[in-house]
Amino acid sequence: MVGGGQGAFIGAVHRAAAALDGQIELVAGAFSSDAARSRESGAALHLAPGRCYASYAEMFAAETKLPLGDRIDFVSIVTPNFLHFPVAKAALDHGFHVMCDKPMTFNLAEAKELAAIVKKSGLLFGLTHNYTGYPLVKEARARVRSGQLGAIRKVVVEYPQGWLASKLESSGQKQADWRTDPKRAGASCCMGDIGTHAENLAEYITGLRIETLCADLSTFIPGRPLDDDGNVLLRFAAAPGGQPAAKGLLHASQISVGEENGFNIRIYGEKGGLRWRQEEPNTLELLWPDRPAERVRTGVGALSPETAHASRLPAGHPEGFLEAFANLYKNFAATLRARLDGTTPTAFDLDFPGVEDGVRGMAFIETVVASSASKEKWVKFAQ
Amino acid sequence: MVGGGQGAFIGAVHRAAAALDGQIELVAGAFSSDAARSRESGAALHLAPGRCYASYAEMFAAETKLPLGDRIDFVSIVTPNFLHFPVAKAALDHGFHVMCDKPMTFNLAEAKELAAIVKKSGLLFGLTHNYTGYPLVKEARARVRSGQLGAIRKVVVEYPQGWLASKLESSGQKQADWRTDPKRAGASCCMGDIGTHAENLAEYITGLRIETLCADLSTFIPGRPLDDDGNVLLRFAAAPGGQPAAKGLLHASQISVGEENGFNIRIYGEKGGLRWRQEEPNTLELLWPDRPAERVRTGVGALSPETAHASRLPAGHPEGFLEAFANLYKNFAATLRARLDGTTPTAFDLDFPGVEDGVRGMAFIETVVASSASKEKWVKFAQ
Amino acid sequence: MVGGGQGAFIGAVHRAAAALDGQIELVAGAFSSDAARSRESGAALHLAPGRCYASYAEMFAAETKLPLGDRIDFVSIVTPNFLHFPVAKAALDHGFHVMCDKPMTFNLAEAKELAAIVKKSGLLFGLTHNYTGYPLVKEARARVRSGQLGAIRKVVVEYPQGWLASKLESSGQKQADWRTDPKRAGASCCMGDIGTHAENLAEYITGLRIETLCADLSTFIPGRPLDDDGNVLLRFAAAPGGQPAAKGLLHASQISVGEENGFNIRIYGEKGGLRWRQEEPNTLELLWPDRPAERVRTGVGALSPETAHASRLPAGHPEGFLEAFANLYKNFAATLRARLDGTTPTAFDLDFPGVEDGVRGMAFIETVVASSASKEKWVKFAQ
Amino acid sequence: MVGGGQGAFIGAVHRAAAALDGQIELVAGAFSSDAARSRESGAALHLAPGRCYASYAEMFAAETKLPLGDRIDFVSIVTPNFLHFPVAKAALDHGFHVMCDKPMTFNLAEAKELAAIVKKSGLLFGLTHNYTGYPLVKEARARVRSGQLGAIRKVVVEYPQGWLASKLESSGQKQADWRTDPKRAGASCCMGDIGTHAENLAEYITGLRIETLCADLSTFIPGRPLDDDGNVLLRFAAAPGGQPAAKGLLHASQISVGEENGFNIRIYGEKGGLRWRQEEPNTLELLWPDRPAERVRTGVGALSPETAHASRLPAGHPEGFLEAFANLYKNFAATLRARLDGTTPTAFDLDFPGVEDGVRGMAFIETVVASSASKEKWVKFAQ
Repeated sequence: MVGGGQGAFIGAVHRAAAALDGQIELVAGAFSSDAARSRESGAALHLAPGRCYASYAEMFAAETKLPLGDRIDFVSIVTPNFLHFPVAKAALDHGFHVMCDKPMTFNLAEAKELAAIVKKSGLLFGLTHNYTGYPLVKEARARVRSGQLGAIRKVVVEYPQGWLASKLESSGQKQADWRTDPKRAGASCCMGDIGTHAENLAEYITGLRIETLCADLSTFIPGRPLDDDGNVLLRFAAAPGGQPAAKGLLHASQISVGEENGFNIRIYGEKGGLRWRQEEPNTLELLWPDRPAERVRTGVGALSPETAHASRLPAGHPEGFLEAFANLYKNFAATLRARLDGTTPTAFDLDFPGVEDGVRGMAFIETVVASSASKEKWVKFAQ
Repeated sequence: MVGGGQGAFIGAVHRAAAALDGQIELVAGAFSSDAARSRESGAALHLAPGRCYASYAEMFAAETKLPLGDRIDFVSIVTPNFLHFPVAKAALDHGFHVMCDKPMTFNLAEAKELAAIVKKSGLLFGLTHNYTGYPLVKEARARVRSGQLGAIRKVVVEYPQGWLASKLESSGQKQADWRTDPKRAGASCCMGDIGTHAENLAEYITGLRIETLCADLSTFIPGRPLDDDGNVLLRFAAAPGGQPAAKGLLHASQISVGEENGFNIRIYGEKGGLRWRQEEPNTLELLWPDRPAERVRTGVGALSPETAHASRLPAGHPEGFLEAFANLYKNFAATLRARLDGTTPTAFDLDFPGVEDGVRGMAFIETVVASSASKEKWVKFAQ
Repeated sequence: MVGGGQGAFIGAVHRAAAALDGQIELVAGAFSSDAARSRESGAALHLAPGRCYASYAEMFAAETKLPLGDRIDFVSIVTPNFLHFPVAKAALDHGFHVMCDKPMTFNLAEAKELAAIVKKSGLLFGLTHNYTGYPLVKEARARVRSGQLGAIRKVVVEYPQGWLASKLESSGQKQADWRTDPKRAGASCCMGDIGTHAENLAEYITGLRIETLCADLSTFIPGRPLDDDGNVLLRFAAAPGGQPAAKGLLHASQISVGEENGFNIRIYGEKGGLRWRQEEPNTLELLWPDRPAERVRTGVGALSPETAHASRLPAGHPEGFLEAFANLYKNFAATLRARLDGTTPTAFDLDFPGVEDGVRGMAFIETVVASSASKEKWVKFAQ
Repeated sequence: MVGGGQGAFIGAVHRAAAALDGQIELVAGAFSSDAARSRESGAALHLAPGRCYASYAEMFAAETKLPLGDRIDFVSIVTPNFLHFPVAKAALDHGFHVMCDKPMTFNLAEAKELAAIVKKSGLLFGLTHNYTGYPLVKEARARVRSGQLGAIRKVVVEYPQGWLASKLESSGQKQADWRTDPKRAGASCCMGDIGTHAENLAEYITGLRIETLCADLSTFIPGRPLDDDGNVLLRFAAAPGGQPAAKGLLHASQISVGEENGFNIRIYGEKGGLRWRQEEPNTLELLWPDRPAERVRTGVGALSPETAHASRLPAGHPEGFLEAFANLYKNFAATLRARLDGTTPTAFDLDFPGVEDGVRGMAFIETVVASSASKEKWVKFAQ
């Protein structure tokens, strides 16, 4: 693991998610750019002191020298955004597979370069667009794919949060501090941190691709250098078949005071619709024109095989954020194991976001930033 | 009453709403342009046959000849949109007060002319933006006005319906038929029928005015001549005090299959937020940055006086659409009675939408239609 | 109308409910035992002063002398409980049909006597167990009747309120005052006022009859002479067919602080279940063993004819307490009109609670009071 | 670990829960009474083959011979009920601490004997009444303890499930098979499996003790030898201070078709109430007589320290069943570590159910079974 020292949020999430299924063991880390802090963080995790490194460069160099069965199999990158690219590149260059937090890189150019490196390396690359790990997100995708909703017409995806409704970064809060700093976060705060999740989820479920968009980003907190809110009109590329292309709205916010992590999506097709909310993730509503809405629940009735594969508990036993996150690690680990074992991973195993998702995410960020600054109504998706 | 013959929807709503509080009695009507149908409709309502007229012109002429205490006091106009203006004008010209369904007229020019006529006449004019009649909509407005939410930053107002997700007008369904016909409905179907409610509600609660907008209207049903869906970015005029101006999103749809009448609004300010949904109208959620959300309910605890005034039942006894609609009639009637009695209506009595709301609604329609056709990103609100 | 003077709650409800459909007109009343107050109450309702009577005796005597078409058709009784019997008896003796608030009488003996009088008179008698008027309560009944749920096994019916969690009657609050007074309310406060609604609803929907019960009534407020809470185990009479008889729980409370009017019912059969909550009355959940729960809504999809008959608005336009209450009056009025017209009322028209429901309600009250005082576990239903 | 071989449900839950915080490592197991199956199960968990034992007796004997730092620290018992006692006794006799699934033993006599053994041994004993591990259950307890609700008057605790609504055990389904078998499950199916959770939660949150009860257990599925549903009236022992003692209802069901794992509790005191539902565990509703209900959420605002201690994620990131379960292991492990380190465990560490909870659980089962068979109304709690 690179990053995720004491006090970090997402590092602890990655560790718990990776541990949940008993298939992954954390054995080494460069948890902080401060060598002593890295050692302390590792000690609290019961790691061998010799494998708590002062830097990722040191870690990759040292681990490469260990015998094959002893060294790390892959690297989890949980640093602030600006370090994703150099760390991932170094890991891949040393032959380590990579699981990386999102957004994938600091900018689109890096993203494209990383995609080329991954391709060339032949190594696995996972990206933690973790919300796609929820069982009922997979069910939603399966329902769209099966044609039950008909051609998709409208997508409404929202990601309201309220935690940056005041100038939290002035208080020294670590999460707020780097996310609002253009040098560490990149070109966007709100759209980079959560808008990309929204973009990814909409495309993951519908299989559609955003073609053009029209964005209005805002910074409501005086003195904050990046956006803390954004509203975006979407137009998707037409699906084959001559139906009118789908349209949509995406909005994300860190100043919607009182909202927690209210990520949600609604999708309407010719024949049916669906609604899913991250804060109550074990329920998926299916909407029909001429009969009662159905309340699909994990563990109840006939669900798609990928939904069942992504669920660990019987009906009514809530699965949450960590379990969904763990599904990415579970599938990544199974794919990795198949590779180590020389077998073929299943379609279930391969179901984790990768470098192409990361490129689209970075393209999304650059497009919304460009659109927001433009007087033209529609801006083409940057990829 | 003009319009609202047998089989009409909104006419029956107006009648029930007007009857609810026992202050208004329906005594005459031109329910249909077909004289026999008008008589039949009136008979079913236990009206005197002599006051079931073949046309509004006949009605106004005849009623004017009755002694003052016997003739109608005011006219309810519940026809398709294109007739609102001529009927309202004729009513006002004959000295009758008017309660009119929305959108107010066929286009903005008519709306402005009607506003001038109303002003000149000195007569009362009510417009049934009925959703403002809900008790907790009034509570929401009171909370914003009191400053509890601080300066407003973001407004998300949605009006999804699904009833026109297929080409219902081809089946002869009366409601679908005229609403999708440009000759009777005007420049817009979806935005005219329900988008205007959304615009009105957002402005009613926040007290803010939309300044510019960016719209993307769609027609998803092939062969339908008007929009059946629309997504709009909003920018409000800055409020006094130097805060960043509020932004927002408005979207309305008649093709969001499975949605019933899912009108809802979320408002986020500096200090707090709120959520209200028309389908569960007796609950208003107040959101705070640092303490639990509150579930405000009609009849529970200390509510604003206008909320109490708009509610008829104790806590937990659901009040619905008709009760909210009736609140407009109740206040209109009280204002009218005050005028007849020579007294001063209270602030409660005066709380019903009027001709200025109608002008803004028509301006909204024309602006979104123009914006949707434009390549410019931001179009100024047409008023 | 007898009772329901200014300041009364249920009288105003009856009036609004009766007015809603434009089929019933209030023309006379004895609104208070104080002649002046009765007149004032009548004046506020725009009644002719000559028909605002000082007592029900005076009213019945005077109205009987009016020509047939001019006199009242029926009487609404909205007094405290102890007056229901004498007023109803007098009305019936004078040949007037009766709509009576619940619980029907002061005790079971009166109830049985009243049933005999009604039977002998041949007149109509309606009882406002108003919650059976909700459209989706009728849908629930239709679903049970159709066998969709299979043989019923378990019924959980709850009626929590919190308004008497402190000694409100000491403050002079009128509603609390008479309900907690054994001389006016009868043998029970909580079970009489709301427990009877729960008993009635359970039997109305399921078609089953409570056979034995085991009750534990409580008075939590010191000095209050009647119960303010009660918990009851239910055993229903076996249905034909050899299935195990259904069991259930009924609990009602006026001290469940923070609860508003939380009446709800859950019913589980062999093949399916259902849930309905009065505070969100336009939703009925259907539960299935092997497929998603369905969210049945008024106005959506295929509903039973009696549900459609009981609903006035399209989907998503909330109907509430008054509309449900009005359905009793609507059906009662239609039955009465059929009788006046010499036609046969429809099954829809006849769907309103009557004197037999009232007898069961009074039997329920006496049984739970007896059971609560008994050391025996099971007490037979008193009828 | 004893039990929990491949195909078992609760064993996998224990393992995931124990792994989540990275403080506990599974190193040995007797997963099945079939030696080969035990080895296979262990292999799938990456255990050393030599520590996959054919029986718990073999395991305890072998592990005792390992050096102190190498042997297991404690044993997780996840077998069917009838084995809990002998395995726990053997573990304690060999000096191993124990974490045991519930219900604690096969009958009350065993429970009392086990309590004595635990006491004498001085070893730690944890019992997985896992629902007490939810953060907001702890918040509920803290609110009651702080006196915010005033003296408790009414407790309604429900545990409806529907998975045994048909004769699932006939299909060979393993979970259904042993739970409905008196030889392996004990005197009760429904009340033993889930009724005990309800009893435990009610007492955990309120701090009150059930004093007498009146139960009506049922078996709705013909041929099933144990109860699959039960309704119970509760009377709690009076709290100090002269307030009327609290009353309540407890009902549990495995035939409430369509219900998943609908465990929930409502508690009403003099001054306030609360509601919590296991299926949406990150929300706790606080009810007040004269102001809006509050929606307490994990991670939002000021919560009690034990709530914060039991939560791993920020607001809006759902924590579920496994996380709550893990909280028991986390606290048990922290207490064990304190003991190994010679330090004093904190109050947080000590917050896990123990042998006294298990005795009360077994007493509850025996009391409801006895009460259900009795003609007497009130039966004293058996302890």
